[in-house]
Amino acid sequence: MQPIVDFILELDKLKGITRKTRPLGLERYENSAEHSWQIALLAASLAQHAGAPVDVDRVVAMLLVHDIGEIDAGDTFVYVEGGWEERKLAELAAVTRIFGLLPDEQGSKFLALWKEFEDGATPEARFAHAMDRAMPVLLNLANQGQSWRENGIRHEQVVRRVGPPIQAGCPALWAYLEDRLGEAHRQGWFGIE
Amino acid sequence: MQPIVDFILELDKLKGITRKTRPLGLERYENSAEHSWQIALLAASLAQHAGAPVDVDRVVAMLLVHDIGEIDAGDTFVYVEGGWEERKLAELAAVTRIFGLLPDEQGSKFLALWKEFEDGATPEARFAHAMDRAMPVLLNLANQGQSWRENGIRHEQVVRRVGPPIQAGCPALWAYLEDRLGEAHRQGWFGIE
Repeated sequence: MQPIVDFILELDKLKGITRKTRPLGLERYENSAEHSWQIALLAASLAQHAGAPVDVDRVVAMLLVHDIGEIDAGDTFVYVEGGWEERKLAELAAVTRIFGLLPDEQGSKFLALWKEFEDGATPEARFAHAMDRAMPVLLNLANQGQSWRENGIRHEQVVRRVGPPIQAGCPALWAYLEDRLGEAHRQGWFGIE
Repeated sequence: MQPIVDFILELDKLKGITRKTRPLGLERYENSAEHSWQIALLAASLAQHAGAPVDVDRVVAMLLVHDIGEIDAGDTFVYVEGGWEERKLAELAAVTRIFGLLPDEQGSKFLALWKEFEDGATPEARFAHAMDRAMPVLLNLANQGQSWRENGIRHEQVVRRVGPPIQAGCPALWAYLEDRLGEAHRQGWFGIE
C-alpha cells in the first residue's frame, strides 16, 4: 500500500503547477491538476466528434496523466518558441521517476499512456491533443482573450499553433473555433500585432 | 458544438469550490476539480485492491463527475452532522441542470454515472466512495492532521465516518489507514477530545 500512497501524495504537487489561463471569474491562475480534470470531461463529452473512432476511456486515462511530468519540469506556455525537445526530455525523466514510485505493473501502464500521448500517433492520442489545445482557447474565448492579451499572443499565432492539432483530432471543434477566433480577432482580444 | 462548449465552461466553476484540505505545501484550500482528478488517479492505481472486481474505467468516469453538483450546492465537510438528505436533493437538481446542457445521450450517460455513485450499490460505486473518503485522510496524514485540527475533528469521528465506506470499497486500504490513524492519534493530530 505504501508505494501507492507515496505516488498519490507526489501527484499532489501538480496542484501547485500554474498555467497562463485564469479560471472564469477567479483572479488566480489555473493549475495543471484541475486542467487535467476538465479536459478529461471535455474528451468524454466530445468523443463522438473525434476525427476517427476512439476508445474514450483510454483518452480519459491519457489526459489524466499527460501533465504529470510538469511536477519536475514546470508548465511551458504553448506559444513559447523552441526548447521543446529539452522540455520533453525533462518531462520523460520526471514521469519515469514518478511512475517508478508505483509497483511495476501499474507504473508501466501509466508510462505507456503518457508516451502514447507524447507520440501522438494513435487516434486516441490525436484526439487527446485536440482536447488539451482546445480548452485554453475555449477559456480565452469566454474571458475576452485573457491569456492572449496578458502575454501578447496574436491571432495568427493561435491559429498556426493550435489549429493543426485540433483539426487533426477533432475537425468539428476546429471548424467551430476557427469562426469564434475570427470574431475574437475583430473584438481585439489578442496581443498587439 | 455550442451545447458542449456551454457545458464545459459551466464546469469551470468547480475550480472555485473549495474544500477543507490544503494541498501539501500550499496555503490555499484544495478545490473540488483538482480533488476529482487526484481520486480518479488513486482509483486507477488501487483498482486491483478493490473489495470486489471493478470496471476501473467506470470508476474513473464516476469520480470525474461525482462532485459536479457542488457547483450549485457547494462542498459540505464530511463531518457535518445532519442535513445530508437536503444537500443530496440540491446536488441532484444541480446535476440535472448542468448535465441537461448537453445533448441528451451524453447528458444521460453522465447523470447515470452520478446516480450510480450516489446510490453506492455497485462494486464500482463502493470502490469510488472509498477513494473519495480516503484521499483527504491521506492528505491529513501527510499534513499533521491539518483539516482535523482546523475543524476540531476527533480521531473517533474519522474512524466512525470514513472507516465503513473505505472498508467496504477497499479493505486493504482501510487496514493501512487504521494503523496510520492510530499513530496520528498518538501524535496529537486531531481536534481536542
